[in-house]
Amino acid sequence: MCQLLGMNCNVPTDICFSFSGFRARGGLTDHHRDGWGIAFFEGRGVRVFLDPAPSAHSPVAELVKHYPIRSLNVIAHIRKATQGEVRLENTHPFQRELWGRYWIFAHNGNLKDFAPSLSGRFTPVGTTDSELAFCFIMDTLAQRFGDGAPTPEALFAALRELACEIGRLGEFNFLLSDGDWLFVHCSSRLCYIVRQAPFPLAHLSDEDLTVDFNEVTTPEDRVAVIATTALTDNEAWTDIPAGTLIAFQNGHPVELGPGATVAQDYPRTAAGDSSHNA
Amino acid sequence: MCQLLGMNCNVPTDICFSFSGFRARGGLTDHHRDGWGIAFFEGRGVRVFLDPAPSAHSPVAELVKHYPIRSLNVIAHIRKATQGEVRLENTHPFQRELWGRYWIFAHNGNLKDFAPSLSGRFTPVGTTDSELAFCFIMDTLAQRFGDGAPTPEALFAALRELACEIGRLGEFNFLLSDGDWLFVHCSSRLCYIVRQAPFPLAHLSDEDLTVDFNEVTTPEDRVAVIATTALTDNEAWTDIPAGTLIAFQNGHPVELGPGATVAQDYPRTAAGDSSHNA
Repeated sequence: MCQLLGMNCNVPTDICFSFSGFRARGGLTDHHRDGWGIAFFEGRGVRVFLDPAPSAHSPVAELVKHYPIRSLNVIAHIRKATQGEVRLENTHPFQRELWGRYWIFAHNGNLKDFAPSLSGRFTPVGTTDSELAFCFIMDTLAQRFGDGAPTPEALFAALRELACEIGRLGEFNFLLSDGDWLFVHCSSRLCYIVRQAPFPLAHLSDEDLTVDFNEVTTPEDRVAVIATTALTDNEAWTDIPAGTLIAFQNGHPVELGPGATVAQDYPRTAAGDSSHNA
Repeated sequence: MCQLLGMNCNVPTDICFSFSGFRARGGLTDHHRDGWGIAFFEGRGVRVFLDPAPSAHSPVAELVKHYPIRSLNVIAHIRKATQGEVRLENTHPFQRELWGRYWIFAHNGNLKDFAPSLSGRFTPVGTTDSELAFCFIMDTLAQRFGDGAPTPEALFAALRELACEIGRLGEFNFLLSDGDWLFVHCSSRLCYIVRQAPFPLAHLSDEDLTVDFNEVTTPEDRVAVIATTALTDNEAWTDIPAGTLIAFQNGHPVELGPGATVAQDYPRTAAGDSSHNA
């Protein structure tokens, strides 16, 4: 299984601490060696760093770890290849433009017999089920809403419907952002934490590293971190129930409508281990 | 004026030497301090490194200089802002997907009163004339050829026509690649060199650095380097005549049709300084 990491904040924040533990899962503390990538939104722009090499030994990861890029929305992914060779074009996260905004997508899971019909407006460059699902989502949104972005509520409802439809074909944990919103869908395993004042002393699970966020934040800062499994071993992470879509903005979940994506015929897989709490 | 750098090769080649001199133009030997970017195609995939900070002092540029990414097609750009603020979303090169391929575009020049009609399929995210021109090109190609890529000859003819049309509105030097071809349009100043065996001893213009390519290449290697002005001071660079489109593949120009884009009402600006030769 791949590893996902997302961050959504109310002020631009660097992800150096969380990334430090996360990248160790790409070849050191875990076996996801088939490349990695990370995308940082900065205003309307986005920077995507991709590397088909394992993140634990990547010079690009070394840069990202030490260069504090401050962002409101970050999506990172470490790959354990299921469909598609280990090649740059199969490395997550993927990027497209719709309605004059960049969209970034990363997926954890495996979709079986997924062969949607596409209009040609968004076409996969690589051979993963993940990029195909992303193109199908973008294609459907473009067709449904035309050339103008819908309301957040309408967008959320459409994504919930699509997550349910695609989720019938297999595991479909994903992170999707347009720079304003971070949409998080859990089909089997994802958890999150919202950090705000008084900030905790946080200790990484994958590396012996502790940070006191009070020293590097203001009392108004709020940061949501979303990950496949908890990144720290002394904080209370919240498991996202399987079959749930959550929209994050300004560092916490925002209610845009019912988030359940579980249909009756949804293939329930084991939910995430709930013993994340210290 | 911005600075452009392109590379097209017959075997994957790193651009560390040329980039070393090129990046110095972003704040050291020249005054282009408004950000920079570089895109490397690797197979069908592409890695784009962007930084709104000056390249001469950028940690990302430091990585690119020392991390030998091998590529058949590279496009780099150092920005001197004319239209659009200094922001990440206005930093070249720009990326879109069409026909299941990534397309990368960088522009040097300034288009006045450019307000094309767009279908909505490709929409600028930032506020530069450059990204608008790129979206107009992609939009026109998608409309003209539908959902399948045309022959290289038909693509070349369409690009020549578009370069001529847009070039009427101002300086329009650009580099465009889909990973297979590198299209180079000169409206005022661009030059190139094709390096092949016996390779020269090359010395940078912007930094006291010499490399003997014979030590790092095989006799079959062929590399075309395209730049706004010559990057070395002891080699013969070829000035591209103003109003010319050239298609590079496998490290040299390929004849796909007449390359002239100069119409009678084309605003002729001063051609590049022709004293590049050592």
